[in-house]
Amino acid sequence: MDKKTKIIIIGCGAGGGTAAQLARKTDRNSEITIFEKGKYAQYSKCGLPYVLSGEISSFNNLIEFSENWFEKENIKLYLNTSVTEINKTKHIVLAKRDNEQIKKEFDKLIIATGAKAFIPSIKNIFENNKLVSGVHLLRTMDDAKALFSELKHTKKASIIGAGLIGLEIADTLYKKGIDITIIESLSNILENTLDIDMSEPIKKELEVKTNLFTNHIASKIETENSRIKQIIIKNKETNQEKKIETDLLVIATGSKPEVNLAEKIGCKIGKRGGIIISEKTLTSLSNIYAVGDCTEYKDFVTNEPTCVGLGSIAVRHGIAAGVNAAGGEYNLPSGLLQTRTSEFFGFEVAAVGLVKNVIKNIQTVYGKFSGSSLPHYYPGGKNITIKVGVNEKNGEIVSAQAVGSNAAQRINVFACAIQNNVRVENLKKLETAYAPPIAPTLDVLTLSCDVAFLKYSRKKR
Amino acid sequence: MDKKTKIIIIGCGAGGGTAAQLARKTDRNSEITIFEKGKYAQYSKCGLPYVLSGEISSFNNLIEFSENWFEKENIKLYLNTSVTEINKTKHIVLAKRDNEQIKKEFDKLIIATGAKAFIPSIKNIFENNKLVSGVHLLRTMDDAKALFSELKHTKKASIIGAGLIGLEIADTLYKKGIDITIIESLSNILENTLDIDMSEPIKKELEVKTNLFTNHIASKIETENSRIKQIIIKNKETNQEKKIETDLLVIATGSKPEVNLAEKIGCKIGKRGGIIISEKTLTSLSNIYAVGDCTEYKDFVTNEPTCVGLGSIAVRHGIAAGVNAAGGEYNLPSGLLQTRTSEFFGFEVAAVGLVKNVIKNIQTVYGKFSGSSLPHYYPGGKNITIKVGVNEKNGEIVSAQAVGSNAAQRINVFACAIQNNVRVENLKKLETAYAPPIAPTLDVLTLSCDVAFLKYSRKKR
Repeated sequence: MDKKTKIIIIGCGAGGGTAAQLARKTDRNSEITIFEKGKYAQYSKCGLPYVLSGEISSFNNLIEFSENWFEKENIKLYLNTSVTEINKTKHIVLAKRDNEQIKKEFDKLIIATGAKAFIPSIKNIFENNKLVSGVHLLRTMDDAKALFSELKHTKKASIIGAGLIGLEIADTLYKKGIDITIIESLSNILENTLDIDMSEPIKKELEVKTNLFTNHIASKIETENSRIKQIIIKNKETNQEKKIETDLLVIATGSKPEVNLAEKIGCKIGKRGGIIISEKTLTSLSNIYAVGDCTEYKDFVTNEPTCVGLGSIAVRHGIAAGVNAAGGEYNLPSGLLQTRTSEFFGFEVAAVGLVKNVIKNIQTVYGKFSGSSLPHYYPGGKNITIKVGVNEKNGEIVSAQAVGSNAAQRINVFACAIQNNVRVENLKKLETAYAPPIAPTLDVLTLSCDVAFLKYSRKKR
Repeated sequence: MDKKTKIIIIGCGAGGGTAAQLARKTDRNSEITIFEKGKYAQYSKCGLPYVLSGEISSFNNLIEFSENWFEKENIKLYLNTSVTEINKTKHIVLAKRDNEQIKKEFDKLIIATGAKAFIPSIKNIFENNKLVSGVHLLRTMDDAKALFSELKHTKKASIIGAGLIGLEIADTLYKKGIDITIIESLSNILENTLDIDMSEPIKKELEVKTNLFTNHIASKIETENSRIKQIIIKNKETNQEKKIETDLLVIATGSKPEVNLAEKIGCKIGKRGGIIISEKTLTSLSNIYAVGDCTEYKDFVTNEPTCVGLGSIAVRHGIAAGVNAAGGEYNLPSGLLQTRTSEFFGFEVAAVGLVKNVIKNIQTVYGKFSGSSLPHYYPGGKNITIKVGVNEKNGEIVSAQAVGSNAAQRINVFACAIQNNVRVENLKKLETAYAPPIAPTLDVLTLSCDVAFLKYSRKKR
């Protein structure tokens, strides 16, 4: 009888959990173990804001695959269990649950340690090495529960960071009738998702509904009875300070890959701080894979190494690692498209590829078009604005941003175009689906390409 | 001074009207004339059912470009004017408005004569060469107005043809509380849009809400006071007849290209009955273009000649013909994708490429997946089913059908994939936009490709 393949997975998030499932699917006989340091089985992190807002009725609903499910699939899941050491030569993982020491051999190891919140340096933010009372993160189920328990008696809340997550949280708290202050160190909101011209209407809405401070950093927290009471923010240009009363503060300034364990055993860490992985999700060490937010992979368009904390990518990684570790074969696409979406304050936002400020090594021309989601004669049409980026050298589509009706599905068309090196000249003539109650004869997605093509053609002359 | 280019356009539908606009944009000095036999300037034919249903409040709203608009653009629009003769050697068009004879020279001629309803042979359907009272078409504004004027006193209506248009009309009349009978000669509804397995849930809904007779032909109309009173239908297999009381009857059995004028001057007519056009929308005769429903062009996937009565395609043709006739250069895509969509009885339906029964020269494997438009933990997700067709030889995507949430925009992704010869192996790994309130981590569009890829791989073994 064949020896059973022993697969150990560190972390039961979207990447780790999916890896376990696909490993099981690929090899019914493999011995699969997951060590998860938290107390929950695989749940949706991206769903957390929607439990806070009440759209999702319970935190339990976010559990995508329960302990029971893993048990039925004959996957051994250890919760509340931290991996303390990986011995790569002996192929052993040491872990700890309460006072219990666990020692497990592996043939294949999958590192799915995720990312940890990046916490900006703010005076008084820590007390005894812990965030001061009233200051919250929103990365884990426990973070969300802690925040949730405070909402009832919160009148004023501040959020640092006006990225996708920051604005999701702002919208959630705003809907609860809480007075919102948003502090963003950059001059633009949604810096990694939308160019400044595209985020403008959202910024205007935020200026109406919240107290938005762009170009400001949070410098200091003032407490009362060991709890946040005020936050001092500083204008980056004028250095002028301002005191903001706040009942709580949420930090949403992004994350950085959690690579401690991987680094210790010599997995190559990239210049963005993530574990470098191959198309098979292999790290630089044989038989050791890594997936999800802790990894670094190349951007499809620029070939630059990139860390992306997107659930969809973690799941794709998980599929690849699970299949490969269990003896199958699955290659990732040759690069990341970074297709992303969210909605807040009445705007659906989506993007693929890099924003203008970030896409440095490719000269890009842009075309933008605003129109209705429906023919003008059909009532109920909603605005949709699309901006498409085109490589000046070869006319290939390299990025797209959309704000408005069905932004996400429209951006998926651009994702397909980028993934297949489609030229704007081609996409602008795409035969899109038309019917009066559904979409106009010429969709904004092709019209934005018309504009981009004109600009591209002028550059070529 | 340069001589002005004289452009004549026959027909002011989506194709002809757009051609005029683009010709004007391309050459501000050209002399542009449109002869339109109807009494309206450019309006949306596809919008007609939605005026009947009340979603659009007035027929006037459907006018996309008014007589005034054309006048301002210095485009001479003759309404109520029939072209009686084209003299291709003398480059002259003769037309008639009431008793007035009009004679115009052209340098470039654009034929945009559209299509006419196909009327099945039914006993007593004509009286004095006209459709008997109570029998309606729905191709023109006048058709729609005539039908509209009857709705108030209609209790029972019958529709022949269960294609996209037939079901749009059925839905419209159903919403008005009218008792609906649908008669379809084929065993499947939506024969040209969905395979039988995909249309099944819609058929079930129709069986609940209407009297649906598939596999039946209408053989005879019985009248009372020269008005329709009953329709006799016959089961195609058993020949059993059935009498259906009806206050009115709508014929929605498709259309055929209107090519009379073009044929007379020797434009090559294709085997589907349309005017054959090139990538520049040129007919077989120099300086004579044709656009829209009267044309025949090749299908992108099969290379077979095809006539498609889609507004989106007519507009694209119009762009090409207008630009080219006015001295610019615009090529159509190398083939038709036939991207189409509609909604009725609560279903959004969309498709691209040919259905299984029609795509004969390409061996195709299919993958189908049904899932939710949102992650399962997020409330309000709607069902979406996608079926994707893959060329057995090379793995390229050749067709897709969707029923459910955002079917149209999802089908646009497949349209982009087909247009660029994308292989299913590639599209199944597309990074789609994910956020809990918007779309799941793995969209049904990629999951359907997973299934298709599996089947394709098995065939390859």
